[in-house]
Amino acid sequence: MLEPLAHIGRDPATGGYLRDAWSDADMELREWFAGEAARRGLDLREDRNGNLWAWWGAPSPRRPGVVAGSHLDSVRQGGAYDGPLGVVSAFAALDILKSRDISPAVPVGVACFTDEEGARFGVPCMGSRLLTGVLPPERALGLTDDDGDTLADVISRAGREPYRIGRDDETLAVIGTFVELHVEQGRGLVTAGRPVGVASAIWPHGRWRFDFRGRADHAGTTRLADRDDPMLEFARMVLAARAAAERRGVVATVGKVRVSPGNANAIPSLVSAWLDARGADERPVRDLVADLAAGASAGVDVREESWTPVVDFDVALRDRLARVAGGDTPAPILPTGAGHDAGILATAGVQSAMLFVRNPTGVSHSPDEHAEQADCEAGVVALADVLEDLCRTRDEVEGR
Amino acid sequence: MLEPLAHIGRDPATGGYLRDAWSDADMELREWFAGEAARRGLDLREDRNGNLWAWWGAPSPRRPGVVAGSHLDSVRQGGAYDGPLGVVSAFAALDILKSRDISPAVPVGVACFTDEEGARFGVPCMGSRLLTGVLPPERALGLTDDDGDTLADVISRAGREPYRIGRDDETLAVIGTFVELHVEQGRGLVTAGRPVGVASAIWPHGRWRFDFRGRADHAGTTRLADRDDPMLEFARMVLAARAAAERRGVVATVGKVRVSPGNANAIPSLVSAWLDARGADERPVRDLVADLAAGASAGVDVREESWTPVVDFDVALRDRLARVAGGDTPAPILPTGAGHDAGILATAGVQSAMLFVRNPTGVSHSPDEHAEQADCEAGVVALADVLEDLCRTRDEVEGR
Repeated sequence: MLEPLAHIGRDPATGGYLRDAWSDADMELREWFAGEAARRGLDLREDRNGNLWAWWGAPSPRRPGVVAGSHLDSVRQGGAYDGPLGVVSAFAALDILKSRDISPAVPVGVACFTDEEGARFGVPCMGSRLLTGVLPPERALGLTDDDGDTLADVISRAGREPYRIGRDDETLAVIGTFVELHVEQGRGLVTAGRPVGVASAIWPHGRWRFDFRGRADHAGTTRLADRDDPMLEFARMVLAARAAAERRGVVATVGKVRVSPGNANAIPSLVSAWLDARGADERPVRDLVADLAAGASAGVDVREESWTPVVDFDVALRDRLARVAGGDTPAPILPTGAGHDAGILATAGVQSAMLFVRNPTGVSHSPDEHAEQADCEAGVVALADVLEDLCRTRDEVEGR
Repeated sequence: MLEPLAHIGRDPATGGYLRDAWSDADMELREWFAGEAARRGLDLREDRNGNLWAWWGAPSPRRPGVVAGSHLDSVRQGGAYDGPLGVVSAFAALDILKSRDISPAVPVGVACFTDEEGARFGVPCMGSRLLTGVLPPERALGLTDDDGDTLADVISRAGREPYRIGRDDETLAVIGTFVELHVEQGRGLVTAGRPVGVASAIWPHGRWRFDFRGRADHAGTTRLADRDDPMLEFARMVLAARAAAERRGVVATVGKVRVSPGNANAIPSLVSAWLDARGADERPVRDLVADLAAGASAGVDVREESWTPVVDFDVALRDRLARVAGGDTPAPILPTGAGHDAGILATAGVQSAMLFVRNPTGVSHSPDEHAEQADCEAGVVALADVLEDLCRTRDEVEGR
């Protein structure tokens, strides 16, 4: 199912994907999306924040649509499924709806959100955060990538207008319900023995940047006693984060580090490290970060780069999806530790839900991420069933 | 004295220098060297390994010359003095010799070695190691920079012939004596209260690459117990290296780290770290690396990237320099923990010596590196005195 995209942004050495937002690979994926919309006769729109919408029927604030979709960008060295499976499945589900010869009471759309992973600028779900106004545009425009280019530079080069980004009520007004299908990033469905599940909640999660400052100096001639080496305190933080996560029953990860100036023969002047922390409850996650900040010396700067409160998906909609998607037995309902655009929309008041497709190993954000073809197909059918149900009976859903 | 070079490769944000070998900045510095040679009527030669030689008089194997010089490349975010001070002082000392109206008995040369710092390819003193044959050319050509470009790619783009690099007997045969003037990278001369000193020895030192491998996975959905996170073992190594260095009375530094894939929201698959270790004696340095290798788990790969045994400079030459450079009282004689091209040449059997210029803070490999103008001028005069002495009486020195 993902074959048409398999070559785009793929690192031949690892099999992993490099699909940073607004990179050449991302532009090629966006072209692919436009082509899929065109060959189905859908109406393609790009909103002010670079999110793509392909509509079957014309939505309006008085007749908002039912939308399925996800994102096409990847983490660096990511897998093939995280994101693209939801977009490809949305197009395929729409094809099924057409083949069933139904006449939807409301428009049906396919969405592709921009920069869901935050691999380039450090803020995940950038497209949906900007769309809903959670992220102020002036803050987003000043974010820099590894080359020091700002988002403003990058989207200007991509031919977009930086001054236009920000909360977009016109687009929000036409989204009646959003359903995001996604590969599961754990083994809940393996345990349940089912190909498709429904999300109950997204754990609260955040990202913090720690800047450890020291004094650059020569690695050979500077006595140990004279050193102010930030690498040591960084190393202690990594170990303290793991210990605190165990103690508090949450997860914490340091997956990105930048050492300046990065000479093998010099003590660094600065080590910057990104901490990702999540848990079922907000309090222990906050406490873990407080533990680390309290344990840090005066020179360490700790900044919150993003924080996403717990998302509890709409219970009635969730149960409805579980019934429709599950066939004879309702689909299992699972929480997740991973953030998604559907969570951002739900928090902003857009009726949203998620479907998960079984992941045999649970591995994600890795070239080893995988889902079986039969499970992906079951996901498409479940999504088609859900869309058919929602677009035929929107009044019922809205009036519940 | 360094004013003409002050703008080249300077980071305006930090005041530090970015002068990787074969970068645009390095090419500009090489142009500057060629210009200095030309305006003095010196004969410019580039040897097979990219080292530059500007000759006053024509050296031959039967009439080898006396050479002063150093290097123009920098560590990343390095200071203005490390390297360039020795090259600029060599040209200035040559001007003094000419103004003294002496007729040297042998040719006098100014040298600029290529890629002394190893900032780009990880191997320091690349130019002198290749020249002397310590580093096999096939190994050098395959080294890669951060962009994945090999040395072969990089020097080809710079218009040099990769197949020509390697031991260069023709060049070696015409170097009678090499004197490298360098800013001190410690505070020995501050303690001694003298502007200029002479090197006794270079500590044995080496660089090792540690590759910690783990399994990339999602930072939010992977339970702590299921993780194979290489960042943890890397952090333990950083702290163990410091503890072992204290225990064994040597210095150890981790100044360069690369995390793959480097996503804030994913457990890394690989953390590569470079350990620099040095000491007055070889044994405890080797023992420290053995400690770390023994403490590492099976999946950790430890490779020696470079090893430089202790260099004891020629005692007679060293004492001669101390007498000539010291004026009324012989100049202080000091060991150093920093590697230099003069050390590589000495080990290869080329008669070599070093002069140090006082560094008020001892800081080096940092934008804060500094030397007072008066001390730099004293260094030039000392170097001129030394060159005059050596080129008038080479027979005496050689026949000792």
